[in-house]
Amino acid sequence: MSVASSRHFLQIPGPTNVPDRVLHAIANPTIDHRGPDFADLALEVFDKLRAVARTSADVVLYPSSGTGAWEAALVNTLSPGDAVLMYETGHFAEQWSELASSLGLRPETIPGDWRSGVDPAAVEQRLRADTEHRIKAVAVVHNETSTGVVSDIPAVRAAIDAAGHPALLLVDTISSLGSMDYRHDEWGVDVTISCSQKGLMLPPGIGLNVISAKALLAAQSARLTKSYWDWQPLLTAGKQGYFRYTPPTNMLFGLREALSMLLEEGLDEVYARHDRHAAATRAAVRAWGLEILCRAPGTAPGTDYSSVLTAVLMPGEHDADHLRQVILEHFDTSLGAGLSKVAKKVFRIGHLGAFNDATLLGTLGVVEAGLRLADVPHRPGGVTAAIAELTGRSGE
Amino acid sequence: MSVASSRHFLQIPGPTNVPDRVLHAIANPTIDHRGPDFADLALEVFDKLRAVARTSADVVLYPSSGTGAWEAALVNTLSPGDAVLMYETGHFAEQWSELASSLGLRPETIPGDWRSGVDPAAVEQRLRADTEHRIKAVAVVHNETSTGVVSDIPAVRAAIDAAGHPALLLVDTISSLGSMDYRHDEWGVDVTISCSQKGLMLPPGIGLNVISAKALLAAQSARLTKSYWDWQPLLTAGKQGYFRYTPPTNMLFGLREALSMLLEEGLDEVYARHDRHAAATRAAVRAWGLEILCRAPGTAPGTDYSSVLTAVLMPGEHDADHLRQVILEHFDTSLGAGLSKVAKKVFRIGHLGAFNDATLLGTLGVVEAGLRLADVPHRPGGVTAAIAELTGRSGE
Amino acid sequence: MSVASSRHFLQIPGPTNVPDRVLHAIANPTIDHRGPDFADLALEVFDKLRAVARTSADVVLYPSSGTGAWEAALVNTLSPGDAVLMYETGHFAEQWSELASSLGLRPETIPGDWRSGVDPAAVEQRLRADTEHRIKAVAVVHNETSTGVVSDIPAVRAAIDAAGHPALLLVDTISSLGSMDYRHDEWGVDVTISCSQKGLMLPPGIGLNVISAKALLAAQSARLTKSYWDWQPLLTAGKQGYFRYTPPTNMLFGLREALSMLLEEGLDEVYARHDRHAAATRAAVRAWGLEILCRAPGTAPGTDYSSVLTAVLMPGEHDADHLRQVILEHFDTSLGAGLSKVAKKVFRIGHLGAFNDATLLGTLGVVEAGLRLADVPHRPGGVTAAIAELTGRSGE
Amino acid sequence: MSVASSRHFLQIPGPTNVPDRVLHAIANPTIDHRGPDFADLALEVFDKLRAVARTSADVVLYPSSGTGAWEAALVNTLSPGDAVLMYETGHFAEQWSELASSLGLRPETIPGDWRSGVDPAAVEQRLRADTEHRIKAVAVVHNETSTGVVSDIPAVRAAIDAAGHPALLLVDTISSLGSMDYRHDEWGVDVTISCSQKGLMLPPGIGLNVISAKALLAAQSARLTKSYWDWQPLLTAGKQGYFRYTPPTNMLFGLREALSMLLEEGLDEVYARHDRHAAATRAAVRAWGLEILCRAPGTAPGTDYSSVLTAVLMPGEHDADHLRQVILEHFDTSLGAGLSKVAKKVFRIGHLGAFNDATLLGTLGVVEAGLRLADVPHRPGGVTAAIAELTGRSGE
Repeated sequence: MSVASSRHFLQIPGPTNVPDRVLHAIANPTIDHRGPDFADLALEVFDKLRAVARTSADVVLYPSSGTGAWEAALVNTLSPGDAVLMYETGHFAEQWSELASSLGLRPETIPGDWRSGVDPAAVEQRLRADTEHRIKAVAVVHNETSTGVVSDIPAVRAAIDAAGHPALLLVDTISSLGSMDYRHDEWGVDVTISCSQKGLMLPPGIGLNVISAKALLAAQSARLTKSYWDWQPLLTAGKQGYFRYTPPTNMLFGLREALSMLLEEGLDEVYARHDRHAAATRAAVRAWGLEILCRAPGTAPGTDYSSVLTAVLMPGEHDADHLRQVILEHFDTSLGAGLSKVAKKVFRIGHLGAFNDATLLGTLGVVEAGLRLADVPHRPGGVTAAIAELTGRSGE
Repeated sequence: MSVASSRHFLQIPGPTNVPDRVLHAIANPTIDHRGPDFADLALEVFDKLRAVARTSADVVLYPSSGTGAWEAALVNTLSPGDAVLMYETGHFAEQWSELASSLGLRPETIPGDWRSGVDPAAVEQRLRADTEHRIKAVAVVHNETSTGVVSDIPAVRAAIDAAGHPALLLVDTISSLGSMDYRHDEWGVDVTISCSQKGLMLPPGIGLNVISAKALLAAQSARLTKSYWDWQPLLTAGKQGYFRYTPPTNMLFGLREALSMLLEEGLDEVYARHDRHAAATRAAVRAWGLEILCRAPGTAPGTDYSSVLTAVLMPGEHDADHLRQVILEHFDTSLGAGLSKVAKKVFRIGHLGAFNDATLLGTLGVVEAGLRLADVPHRPGGVTAAIAELTGRSGE
Repeated sequence: MSVASSRHFLQIPGPTNVPDRVLHAIANPTIDHRGPDFADLALEVFDKLRAVARTSADVVLYPSSGTGAWEAALVNTLSPGDAVLMYETGHFAEQWSELASSLGLRPETIPGDWRSGVDPAAVEQRLRADTEHRIKAVAVVHNETSTGVVSDIPAVRAAIDAAGHPALLLVDTISSLGSMDYRHDEWGVDVTISCSQKGLMLPPGIGLNVISAKALLAAQSARLTKSYWDWQPLLTAGKQGYFRYTPPTNMLFGLREALSMLLEEGLDEVYARHDRHAAATRAAVRAWGLEILCRAPGTAPGTDYSSVLTAVLMPGEHDADHLRQVILEHFDTSLGAGLSKVAKKVFRIGHLGAFNDATLLGTLGVVEAGLRLADVPHRPGGVTAAIAELTGRSGE
Repeated sequence: MSVASSRHFLQIPGPTNVPDRVLHAIANPTIDHRGPDFADLALEVFDKLRAVARTSADVVLYPSSGTGAWEAALVNTLSPGDAVLMYETGHFAEQWSELASSLGLRPETIPGDWRSGVDPAAVEQRLRADTEHRIKAVAVVHNETSTGVVSDIPAVRAAIDAAGHPALLLVDTISSLGSMDYRHDEWGVDVTISCSQKGLMLPPGIGLNVISAKALLAAQSARLTKSYWDWQPLLTAGKQGYFRYTPPTNMLFGLREALSMLLEEGLDEVYARHDRHAAATRAAVRAWGLEILCRAPGTAPGTDYSSVLTAVLMPGEHDADHLRQVILEHFDTSLGAGLSKVAKKVFRIGHLGAFNDATLLGTLGVVEAGLRLADVPHRPGGVTAAIAELTGRSGE
């Protein structure tokens, strides 16, 4: 039963559970955003963010949601009427496409089945056909938060290159940055879009762009209207550790702390931890006899399981939202809903950010308990399977 | 001397000192922004915000700075090429004007001397001359944070009405809302622009608009490009207590707490407190023999002293930034800098938000100490004068 | 694996996980312990503590551990050389007996097997034999934290009454108060001993006594040396909401919050929650094929399972401390050690305080994982059994 | 006026204002007090405490008030009927003497006038007269918190040595440790008594003893009853970083942080800061035309002004408690009351712990404002005088 005194399990795929260290950092007294301590803070945050994004490129931060960071990437690099090649990996890819339309861009979206990632061959084919280079950017989602499917960004880069196409590569890493291997420079990304409330283990409130030299060049001729999102004044002020307008100071306290924690743990260790929890989650889902929304790797080009969330298909006509409500009311645990096309058909288990084995097993335990209470057909033993996976032993 | 263990005095005119209750609220674990607890939070915040803005109109909140809220007010109500009548009360009025330009609007700015408020007669005259109603909005700053001058908003409203002009009235209350008497409905304002880090006693990170019915109507035909700032989807989601994109949940925890504190104290009591601290500050400045930047009420139309900050002119060629640096280094107290036109010529004392008599006297004390250390000509006794003002007694 | 960013599972049987509300309360600025706000705080704490202990009697609080509260109960009621009847329910009963000796009392301890509670018949028999009434107090542990065995306090009271013996009844409720049904008045207890860090959901630092009228009377002739622990000056000051010496103010902030939380949830609901979690834990232990240290109710007089912790016997020669170490290192979860006589033979799972189903399942999950990793013979499926118990359904 | 949103000025001479860093440390989740992280914490605290007390001797910590630490020093070193030489420096010296009586000791108190420190010559004379060495300990207060008078501990040590007397030297540093120069080893102290809520910048809840080898030896033959306060088991457990009973874990988190802050600032810098604030406070008192309770250095043997508090005599028949009440109600600032003999005759200004110039000037400002409001005869300008003292300049 839900008990006010105990800690809620926030197992949606973001916002994630914020570590106490980060919450305490955020609760520090606000400082003068034009004073020397602020500049030290900001420069440290930029540096550590670059380390996490594996880049030496410029970074801009916004007081915004991730949606704002999407918009920033588009308005800084593109001009009215520009075509943008997008790929329908799921709800968030679609949202981004709608955003592009509302800004006066022309998104061209390659349809997808919401169960697989970006097909690099389809991207290449589409770009080859664009002999006039009307497509100015390829915009894809690294980890599609609505489906739990990861796309192969280096393969997308290779597809663009193979087509000999000059389009920029814009990548949404909103739910992957800080949780899954991601390399802005090595992978040839032009604009990385992310925000604070997923792998970066912060509350929502900061959006960010990492910007390649090619994207900066494109920005010089981009003619979409912009002010708040304009990179240039932010980059200029940022060199000194300041902002063009009042920055979200306390969130930056938290970001410094969260980035430090990621780097202390070690990025490879962080990624391995997420991989391991995802594998254990899939073991539980399979033991329950339920189906994972993401197609198995190898069955669809460029597709892989997400290490940060697992979307689970409900059997038969069972309503995923009813299950989530039972779990929320009885077990004080929040799971992610299915969105738009898969509404009520899937529920999503977030296993990212500040997370450990005990929290995972508690989460899977209440999912199994919820399946029982909601009379959803399943086999018990999901947690047992997850334990076997976590311990690397099959039990006796 | 600056001591790490003691509390910094953040006496810039915003961000202001955040009360412990608010900092603790912000440090609560993040919750699911699509769950029922979130809706309760958001609806309570909207209600209390309306109470503070003295309105029954719609409110939208953004994860943004105040700059974002400026942009939101413009892009939702105006179309490319629209004229906006602005008034040069100081740095922030100028910034807003530049923002309007960058969005493709045509700001027409009535020049000012940075020491007085909006002259309603000048507004009326300009509007009467606009017989074609090319001016679609009058955009003014209630409390000009760069100068410590307040404009008479009801008089501006009366000027618009006297001219029989249909322009919308957009008012920046960034540094007045929650600290000085302000009445969105009664004063006939169409869009109120504000943000979190001044009188609302929060860290930066939330921007807001209060929107009149007339402004909502104008929004239907406004053709500036917008997505993030678009009122409509936010208003629709907001009716149920939700947001179109991920909201700044922990900041909203803090906003609920801060609004509760303002309403517990009583708005009239809050305003009287600010008035009293401002009067004591001016008494100190006069005792020092220094000059207040704001012209005395009555000497310039529509002008009044700010109750939230006092800008002080440096005597002779003395550099205000040097004084501020001395005070920061020796007394761990941050004061506001003079901006653009008055850079180095004034320093600004913030006396708003979470503030009491002891903090005021400590602030004035270190300013007086700083004047000594920096060899700025002045008469001692400013704190004594402030004490006399605060106690309503001239001493013996 | 242990991850710095995620929350440690503190599943020892106290100190328990402290709720965020309580941690935030403790982090409030310290106030003047002689001012009016402090008196309001203290009086509220006393009242709410009485509600939780179901008493209208006097309460004294100490800046101390529970050990201090043991000492306070003895030195206020007894004189050098007095006999105290004690019962060897486990390690803590023994410790209390040693404490009595060191104070110059003569504990007479009825031996026990550390797997059962106080045998009321044995108490009655011993008291009947004490025709000279040399025994001045019967001192028993309600919930023996070292073994997970509960004794029947009303039956002990009945035994004293049946023997017609005037001895005081002193009861250690250190790990039961606020978690298990306990009734100071109705059960005829003379001194209730407890402290902050178990069911009261606080960090350690407060010890307490609840004092019957009979105990107060006994205090008038008690001649053990005392100063810090002396009830009288504390009771006198306490009537006004003050303390004789500087009180642990911030811990009292936390205590007020924690008591409010218990009363908001409802004491009966709190107890039912603990009963339910204990039943699920026992279901897991049985499913693993392991043995619970506490004898089954009915097999030993006055004995019942603890609802706040379960002590589990290791099979064969397996070392419980090795298992605990594996679980700490791999799963960032702390379990309780076996103490003295049962050292290395048992481990203890705390399931009390701020605790919910997900946390329980996470805890049991990592215990099962630890059994695997440490190669302790067991059957998998403990969590499955616990889920069945929690949901009241046997699964399919 | 008092405003809920702003920070209370807690200017009693302890508990002192707790820095945010310490409050945040205290708000960390409680850990297993038998686990390895706890041992690291405790050993670090012991080490840093030794650095602050300038000693290499043993340290024991108690979950207790300072009163408990007084008791601990006595019961560990003395036997029933032992004489203890004490000196009536003020209220707290008297309280300690009463405590000694209640434990069965025979305090012999040299009378004092509450305005001067320990007269070393009087101590020497009394010890010389004690040819049978019935006096087993000399117990004096370093900084008498009730009067703001400091005694010369090295001179007391020299007096004992000059008398060739074997008595132990017990020193109460409750309000001096961490704020004023104090050297356990160099000054030849046998037991240093202190606690958390003054110069150590913590909330109340920890008492402590620093123990010389000679005191340890004395402990072997001390026969006062003891259990909770017994050094021996605490020292044994402490060697490994553990406690005999449940330690106040969260307070230890705070103590680690506070000690780190003192050592980061530098002890000499900390002491100089306190000296400077005390000098500025005295300048203000003199400017008001009021009298300082402490006699001027040089006018009474072994006497010096306290650097942590200043007790101020009220002129004529004016009631200090009325003044304090006016200041509390109007200015949200707590000052210390006069205690017992000087009740209502003095008020005490605490200027210790986490404190800076702005806080001092704010405090003195509201005292001056309170003197006005309460119609206490005084000259204005106290803050002006304090500013002159702080800046080392007489103004113009």
